[in-house]
This record gives sequence, structure tokens and C-alpha cells, in this order.
Amino acid sequence: MNRIPHLEVIGITGIPEITGGESLGSLIADAAQNQDTPLRNGDVLVVTQKIVSKAERRLFDLSDIEPSPLAVNFARETQKDPRLVELVLRESRSVVRMDSERGIIISETRHGFVCANAGIDNSNVPGDDIVCLLPEDSDRSARAIRDEIKHITDADLAIVISDTFGRAWRDGHANVAIGVAGMNPVKDYRGTLDVNGVVLKVTTIAAADELAAAAELVTAKAIQVPVALIRGYEYERMEDATTAPLIRERSKDMFR
Amino acid sequence: MNRIPHLEVIGITGIPEITGGESLGSLIADAAQNQDTPLRNGDVLVVTQKIVSKAERRLFDLSDIEPSPLAVNFARETQKDPRLVELVLRESRSVVRMDSERGIIISETRHGFVCANAGIDNSNVPGDDIVCLLPEDSDRSARAIRDEIKHITDADLAIVISDTFGRAWRDGHANVAIGVAGMNPVKDYRGTLDVNGVVLKVTTIAAADELAAAAELVTAKAIQVPVALIRGYEYERMEDATTAPLIRERSKDMFR
Repeated sequence: MNRIPHLEVIGITGIPEITGGESLGSLIADAAQNQDTPLRNGDVLVVTQKIVSKAERRLFDLSDIEPSPLAVNFARETQKDPRLVELVLRESRSVVRMDSERGIIISETRHGFVCANAGIDNSNVPGDDIVCLLPEDSDRSARAIRDEIKHITDADLAIVISDTFGRAWRDGHANVAIGVAGMNPVKDYRGTLDVNGVVLKVTTIAAADELAAAAELVTAKAIQVPVALIRGYEYERMEDATTAPLIRERSKDMFR
Repeated sequence: MNRIPHLEVIGITGIPEITGGESLGSLIADAAQNQDTPLRNGDVLVVTQKIVSKAERRLFDLSDIEPSPLAVNFARETQKDPRLVELVLRESRSVVRMDSERGIIISETRHGFVCANAGIDNSNVPGDDIVCLLPEDSDRSARAIRDEIKHITDADLAIVISDTFGRAWRDGHANVAIGVAGMNPVKDYRGTLDVNGVVLKVTTIAAADELAAAAELVTAKAIQVPVALIRGYEYERMEDATTAPLIRERSKDMFR
């Protein structure tokens, strides 16, 4: 019999409410230990963006914002908070779609991610005027968590920071990777032969995005499970990994 | 301690080469039994498109095709097989992008999926002129597999048929659902409150797409594992499920 490919996706519970300044790596390692799933070499940890942003104090008080005329106009047409619209524009490198009928802003964030509202949201954030921004550099955040866990537990693992994005063409959101550390975020099949000796056409798989999606199945929204451990997935180790290979270059993108 | 959310993704090995006319449900149930992971109530089976298409004899011989002038022109500019280009056009309900510089056709298939080449490909298919089409109705295919398995094993489970699609904005392909049976393909959070009592903004999660993505982590390309069993995922049972909720209506899509 062939080897049976098998992986587990395990929610990490018992992580305390994050308020800012915490060392996430140490909290995650402790929580994993406490639920009898201590972290091991080769594990992938998928950490949801919200706790990373909160630990990095990326909350933003809308009262500090003076909206521009563009933001005021768009907000009026769409019944949105003009200060939030202004912040979305400020956090964007370019606007891909700004649709005042649907009240949607799809933009390219400073990191290069194309998503709604520059990734800013106000769920699970305390205070009416407080919103949460993406981490400043989510690959750096991922590296920091990885290094900390290695320091504490000696386990060499990969980190994926995930966020929930909408997609073109398909309804429903899905989790994708906005930060990685320790693994090649892409599986490359270029040159691989199929069973008939034909070169495969689909060349690269966005493995980190698929890991983020798999993790969402146990972390879900609105429950206190902000981290998932994926065990049994064989990834390509990469010390200087970033999410850059997951972002299509603007000049090669037919949908901007 | 909270309940620890936990799921397993298990490759189903030992499924024979599919040549056409097979009863997939029975082959999958046998293979699962033979590797000591018999199918159970509540399991999700993710079946890759290629074996479904092959079982349904959706192979197509390009020698039967007379390409149109549009196909001939596009093929000349892009060094493609004009017969394949013609078939892609015939299998499409509408063309979203047809880029002769990159040699890419993104279209809406008859099912409503937006993808490259109308989902047609020639990997893992015998013969130079033979290509593989998507199932005619992949929800129907999923229902047939589900019914068969229920009949044989008495297990009530959900089926996802997956295919590998490119995405807008992000590089790398990922697996998504092109057929479902037995489960609501979408998780709906509308009206759900966060920890602070605020209504969540992200309203729906494309659960079936995330299951397809998770399965890809064990099925992968070019290996003999065309099916994955996902155990431990709590889905909403739905007898008359289809992939329709995963497809954005054209009138609501800003990227067509």
C-alpha cells in the first residue's frame, strides 16, 4: 500500500484576549502546550491577522482623522463613516474599484494585497471609533513569531498569517496568507510530469493560501480560536520567505 | 478547557486508474475501507475533477474539431492548438478576457465558473489529441457519488468536487469547489455578534472552497491521490445543495 497522506488541523485554544504589546509566540507556544499539542518541528501555525494587529497595537482611533472631500462624498453616497473611508484611502497604494452604488472600495494595500477596505475592520475591536489595521509588515510579524517560538521551544516551524478576503467572480470570503515565515508559500510543479509523461500545465500552487483556508475551517469567525496548528504538511523550508510570490505583479494582472 | 477544534485531512489511496464508466462512489468507498479509514457519517469527501470527468467519459478528441477563424487567429498569435482554442470558446458562455499577448483565455463556463481555458486541460489524459472537459453538471456528479456511497456504506456525508483555478490579483493556483452535495457550501455569519457584541462585517465564508483548498494539501498534482477525506468538520447539512451560492452573479461582479 502507498503511504497515506494525512494531516491534522488543530485549533489552539486558551490564548488570552490580546490587548497590545504581547509576545504572541510565547502565548501560542504556552497555549499549545496546555492543550497537550506542544509545537514540533515541521508544524505550520496559521495565526489570524486580528491578534497579530492587536499585539502590534495597530488599532486606530477614527476621532483622529480629518476626512478629505473625496472621502466625504463617497461616505455620503454610501452611508459610511467618512473617517473610515479616509483611512481606507490612506492605507491604500492604489484604488482598484471604488463603487458608490455598492459602497465598496477594493484597493491595493501598501503591502500589495488587493482587498476590500484595505483590510481595515472593526469586528472584535473595543470601542465604537476604534478600527484595526493590517500589520505594518506581516512577513516581519510572521518571522518574529517563528523566531520567538524557536527560541522558547526549539521547534523549527512555519508561520502563516491569515486574513479573510473577498474574491473576484466567486461569492463568499476565504482566508488567504498575508504573511509567511519559514516556508516557501508556493509549490512549484513546473517541469513535473504527469502519469503519461506529459508536462503539467498548472505550474504553481499557492500553498500558503490553501493552508490559511484549511485553518479557517477550525478557527472560524467570532470564536476564541485565533490560531490553528497544521501538522503533517510537508512544506519546502525557506529562511527568507515572504508573501511576495503570492502577489501578482500589477503589470501581469488582467483584473486591475 | 474549551473543546479543541480538530479535523483530519486524509488522502484516499489505491483508487485505480479511471478509464470511463466507473462507479466512483463504490471505488472510493472500497479504497477508504482498504486503507482502514472507512467512510462515516459527517465526513466530507473532496474528489478532484479529473477522475469525475474521466469516469463520465468527458474526454474529447481534438481531431473532431474544425476551428473557427477567431480560434485560428488567436492560436497563431499565441502558438496554441487552434482546435483547443475553438473548444475553449465552445465550452464558454462568455469570454471575460482573451489576451493574445499572454495567450490567456479567461471565460465563464456553461456552469458559471470563471476560469482559464473553460477548465479544459490535457494533463493525466492519454493521447496527444485528447483533452478533458469539466463534468457536464458537477453538482449532479457530486450527488451521484454521495447517493452511491450512502447506498453502499449507509454513511451520510458531503461531497465536494474540486478543481484547480487561477485567481485575480494573486499568483499561484488554488483548489476550489465546482460541485457539492449534502452540505451548504457557504457558512453564513450574517447577524453573528463578535466578542464585543458588534455585528460581524464579513458575512459569508466559502466553506466548500476552503475544504477544496485543504484537500489539495494532501491530494496534490501528479500523485495518485485523487480524493481526500476531511473528518471533523461540522458542516450544515443540505439535501438540495448546489455550488450556485459560490458563484457571484454577473451583475454584482465588478471584475468581468
